[in-house]
Amino acid sequence: MDRTELSTLGEFGLIKLISEGVKPVKKSTKMGIGDDAAVIQEGDQFSLLTTDMLMEGVHFDLSYAPLKHLGYKAAIANFSDIFAMNGVPEQILVSLGLSNRFSVEAIEELYAGIKLACEIYEVDMVGGDTVSSKSGLVISITARGVVEQNKIAYRSGAKDKDILVVSGDLGAAYMGLQVLEREKAVYESTPGVQPDLEGYDYILERQLKPEARKDVVKLLDQVGVVPTSMIDISDGLASETLHLADRSEMGLILYEEKIPIDPTVINTAEKFNIDPTLCALNGGEDYELLFTISQGDFEKLKGNPNFSFIGHVSEGSASQMIARDGSAHELTAQGWDAFIKAKKENL
Amino acid sequence: MDRTELSTLGEFGLIKLISEGVKPVKKSTKMGIGDDAAVIQEGDQFSLLTTDMLMEGVHFDLSYAPLKHLGYKAAIANFSDIFAMNGVPEQILVSLGLSNRFSVEAIEELYAGIKLACEIYEVDMVGGDTVSSKSGLVISITARGVVEQNKIAYRSGAKDKDILVVSGDLGAAYMGLQVLEREKAVYESTPGVQPDLEGYDYILERQLKPEARKDVVKLLDQVGVVPTSMIDISDGLASETLHLADRSEMGLILYEEKIPIDPTVINTAEKFNIDPTLCALNGGEDYELLFTISQGDFEKLKGNPNFSFIGHVSEGSASQMIARDGSAHELTAQGWDAFIKAKKENL
Repeated sequence: MDRTELSTLGEFGLIKLISEGVKPVKKSTKMGIGDDAAVIQEGDQFSLLTTDMLMEGVHFDLSYAPLKHLGYKAAIANFSDIFAMNGVPEQILVSLGLSNRFSVEAIEELYAGIKLACEIYEVDMVGGDTVSSKSGLVISITARGVVEQNKIAYRSGAKDKDILVVSGDLGAAYMGLQVLEREKAVYESTPGVQPDLEGYDYILERQLKPEARKDVVKLLDQVGVVPTSMIDISDGLASETLHLADRSEMGLILYEEKIPIDPTVINTAEKFNIDPTLCALNGGEDYELLFTISQGDFEKLKGNPNFSFIGHVSEGSASQMIARDGSAHELTAQGWDAFIKAKKENL
Repeated sequence: MDRTELSTLGEFGLIKLISEGVKPVKKSTKMGIGDDAAVIQEGDQFSLLTTDMLMEGVHFDLSYAPLKHLGYKAAIANFSDIFAMNGVPEQILVSLGLSNRFSVEAIEELYAGIKLACEIYEVDMVGGDTVSSKSGLVISITARGVVEQNKIAYRSGAKDKDILVVSGDLGAAYMGLQVLEREKAVYESTPGVQPDLEGYDYILERQLKPEARKDVVKLLDQVGVVPTSMIDISDGLASETLHLADRSEMGLILYEEKIPIDPTVINTAEKFNIDPTLCALNGGEDYELLFTISQGDFEKLKGNPNFSFIGHVSEGSASQMIARDGSAHELTAQGWDAFIKAKKENL
């Protein structure tokens, strides 16, 4: 039998392989594979379903991620996918793969984080599965949300000349991870040394205990804006921009100078000798919302400090970033890709 | 910090710990943790959500489980949980943790099995997640189903003097596993030897490519029977009977002589020097439906070869099995427990 290495496929290739021959037969399936969440029609109502799996050693490192924060973040990542459809999460199912090295107290910590996220975001934990794992911790969460039919924001609706908007700021979670990994390396070479985490509060919190933008969905509703397309930023601005462009069959132009980056990220990136723009483009785990709005809606969001207007849709052109010096760079999806990362680590 | 070993908790203890302080706040949450699936109200309609996680080395062994069968079985296990609520599955989300040892062809095989199950059971695969695993294969599937409000069969509705019914026959999947493990051991000690699987077709199929009882849900509907309580048999008859008893706050009496066991299972069990009744009680993975009906519904199911009437509900008594010799034995949940199993293997 032929053997094709998984690494030759890439993220898009793998999704294509999985979706091959998959044609919804149920009337209730309004959107299957290919967006932040599946869309299900339930009578006169629409619901959303999304799922995420997190693996120890690939997505998190228990040597610096406290279990309570990890539980919180795992739940948040799923809520974020529901918000990215312009919906509101209502329920989650939590499955854990655990080995005997975890004590009852450790599991309580993990669930404490999940339950705290549920409490804050008003979501019910309604089920799950708990199984034995021969190796690391596995967390698989599925979220169900609801959305009004005329407010669903797919990835695919961006129209020519729409404005590209992003909430919050980008790159902080990635820089937080760099600081944590540096301190872990220091600790491993000189055990007993205190980690130097002072002044990094913001970026550490963005990495270890991020929030999802429930407020943005609410705010959009209040001002009467329905994004023409939307996605959440889990893999980096570049990768998500390309997803919107690909699904909408449009080009997206973004401007480096408009990308919102927190001063802490800029300062830390300089210390680490990294370009802060690259942190925003390729870092990921920001859980901000990236969306397009029609020009007519610009006035409704203008001046709101939650939003940055970072680019626009351009039919027929390739997706690119215009750098500060005016030069154009084609966007490539070098976002945080679990497969590439793991492959590098395994080599 | 105190350390309490996970193994001290047991299955019920772990579920109790997880559900601690979990109180649904959403109006749409009709049933949270504690049944085969969560029940969600969606307008005038009810939907069901359930999830299962399967770990390599704990729930399956790739040395004898073909990937296509494994994918099929993983999907079936979730459909079965929806049928156990008297519902019909409509969508699934599939998350996989994969290491680089899996080729593209292997993943295609796995999905071929999942897609085949979807096709046969008329279910849409609408999403999922694919991540890198540092160790074994992890399969996490979430299913959504629908059910009419007045047909939901919870675990908790069994009433005094109701009749206990089970579909199909029990213990075959467990005996199939014993045969596979024996042949694997032979092969490992004498490589090259052909496995002796002749005459075991039925029990091997029950282990490797089981079906879920969609037909039973349909049949119950046709004859106008709504079970007063229902559960699917994934952990063995004893464990599931105790779940119904516990949730319904009733005692359940079952009769050894009434337990349906296929002749192949009886013959094979004899060869393996195992009591066939124990295979049915503790084996698990049968994916049959165990349910109670009111006495008034007995005539509607009587004589149907799909069903065996194996006992009854007895308010206030302990759950027990009456053996062939008339002696009574209290039921204990020695069903297949991933934790106990893994613990034994790790010791």
